[in-house]
Amino acid sequence: MRATLIYGAGDVRVENVPDPVIKQPTDALVRITTACVCGSDLHPYHSMSPADGPARIGHEFIGVVEDTGAEVSNVRKGDLVVAPFAFSDGTCAFCREGLHTSCVHGGFWANGDIDGGQGEAARVPLADGTLVKLPVGADSALIPSLLTLSDVFGTGYHAAVKGGVNPRTTVTVIGDGAVGLLAVLSAKRLGAEQIILMGRHQDRTDLGRTFGASDVVAERGEEGIAKVRELTGGQGTHVVLEAVGHMPAYEQAYGVVRPGGTISRVGVPQYEQAPIGFGSLFGGNITLTGGPAPARAYIEELLPDVLEGRLEPGKVFDRTVDLDSVPDGYRAMDSREALKVLIKP
Amino acid sequence: MRATLIYGAGDVRVENVPDPVIKQPTDALVRITTACVCGSDLHPYHSMSPADGPARIGHEFIGVVEDTGAEVSNVRKGDLVVAPFAFSDGTCAFCREGLHTSCVHGGFWANGDIDGGQGEAARVPLADGTLVKLPVGADSALIPSLLTLSDVFGTGYHAAVKGGVNPRTTVTVIGDGAVGLLAVLSAKRLGAEQIILMGRHQDRTDLGRTFGASDVVAERGEEGIAKVRELTGGQGTHVVLEAVGHMPAYEQAYGVVRPGGTISRVGVPQYEQAPIGFGSLFGGNITLTGGPAPARAYIEELLPDVLEGRLEPGKVFDRTVDLDSVPDGYRAMDSREALKVLIKP
Repeated sequence: MRATLIYGAGDVRVENVPDPVIKQPTDALVRITTACVCGSDLHPYHSMSPADGPARIGHEFIGVVEDTGAEVSNVRKGDLVVAPFAFSDGTCAFCREGLHTSCVHGGFWANGDIDGGQGEAARVPLADGTLVKLPVGADSALIPSLLTLSDVFGTGYHAAVKGGVNPRTTVTVIGDGAVGLLAVLSAKRLGAEQIILMGRHQDRTDLGRTFGASDVVAERGEEGIAKVRELTGGQGTHVVLEAVGHMPAYEQAYGVVRPGGTISRVGVPQYEQAPIGFGSLFGGNITLTGGPAPARAYIEELLPDVLEGRLEPGKVFDRTVDLDSVPDGYRAMDSREALKVLIKP
Repeated sequence: MRATLIYGAGDVRVENVPDPVIKQPTDALVRITTACVCGSDLHPYHSMSPADGPARIGHEFIGVVEDTGAEVSNVRKGDLVVAPFAFSDGTCAFCREGLHTSCVHGGFWANGDIDGGQGEAARVPLADGTLVKLPVGADSALIPSLLTLSDVFGTGYHAAVKGGVNPRTTVTVIGDGAVGLLAVLSAKRLGAEQIILMGRHQDRTDLGRTFGASDVVAERGEEGIAKVRELTGGQGTHVVLEAVGHMPAYEQAYGVVRPGGTISRVGVPQYEQAPIGFGSLFGGNITLTGGPAPARAYIEELLPDVLEGRLEPGKVFDRTVDLDSVPDGYRAMDSREALKVLIKP
């Protein structure tokens, strides 16, 4: 089959790779019908050393089950399914607590002998725990929105849930990428009224307003912090959803959070050391939370809103490419020509 | 009056200072009957530059109200009162939320023209919000336990509350100082059953067992982490209460916390930068919380347990000095001869 590989920074190629086959009785084979490029795919696209490549890439997909191992019972041949960005058994202590990204038997796509999501097909380990059947056809107009349940909507929602967003909390969202915009939608869904979106790209922040942002702050750094404080009576917001992962976004986060408030991070941190002492977090009793979203935990909860058209997270997709054009999709997202790129293999 | 001043690292003196007087109609004058030395007083005792001294010191006290300003109505002359380690108006948005340490009109003892707690008397700003009347005499046997409500018990309790301790959580407490031991007592009060105390001083960890520790780990660093993991089926504990404030304690905290768990810090961090990236906090969805305890918020809640003898947090005091011997009290705590020193001015 054809699949996407990354050879190093700026070097993405679509090539022939071995067809996936069932290896374990808990596996399923899925023919991928829709996939996409993630903001986090851009991290290796910026910095991966050729010595670490070539490697498969991609971790968000919808597809049709082609075959299942002997122990798979929740999905069967012909089912349209969505796969979250981590596979998980659904039965271990962490999965039962809703922390599927820490599943003791689970793992991540495009890792070792695990297929990536940006290809024609994938072997899905732990299919019963991982896959969720979708009650629509592969050509449904809802597919883009349903695909966001694989990662980007679940990740924005995780930020809001871990941040404790509710109707009584004010919220700042840092970042106008797809995760940030869906963090806005998530905060709105959880009842927040004041949702301040910090972002500089007007087409994106306009979509953020559609999703529920009450205010947009285009300024960054100290100026951006001052603007948010101005909008909140000098105090900052109860919750800050940090959807970027770079240090300036984190610094902005503790600059705009209210004493006693919470910073919830879902942008994969591109740093290890950061300020957490008296002046940044401790003095104001600030809570720092977040991590890789257990997207699987949120699919059943968010699915009805998507199926019934109440929420349209799929609006974050503004370009569609075929499999051979995936390298162009990366280029378009990296240059910010595209917000998020859908792939039709 | 006589009061304690710190002139620099290792240099604490008791000297004559001006008698406090009512300055604001919201002030009270309190004749201090019992005070103590805090682990956090040892930070300047270790590192304060003589250029920053001399400065008043001390922030935990019980005393008798001698006079009140015209607007004070909650306490009156003759009342025995306990003062939390921060004064606060009790009426601002943060106080109403129970975050008195962020009171918009509040502040800390021994700061600017504010008296310290280790002296014969103190002017108490915002007396109505700050002071809590105690229904016992100044010579009651309960005084040591009641004094812990000023800071050390409230701080241990804050750690446990912010950490989300409940009957279903396993807990590690890092540090066998007075705060750590009262974090054990607090975790026990909130229903935790497995409470692992990490500490190396057997007389202290023995008291920790009395307070409710189910296990004691004397090892530190990697060895200590391995021991806690061994006690928790390899996973670590849901909650880690970090009651030290030095970097090795923080590193130990993220080493023993379970995925999805919470590190709650109440030891004042003696660092600003620390690891919070994928490998330490983010990857496991670890929450980091804590800060200066709003001790005032917990006094009414904890008072009945102390008055009725169900909890005896005052057991952390193992030495009593008079005011002139306060320098010797510092020396004894610093050398770990004493766990916590009571002062009888």
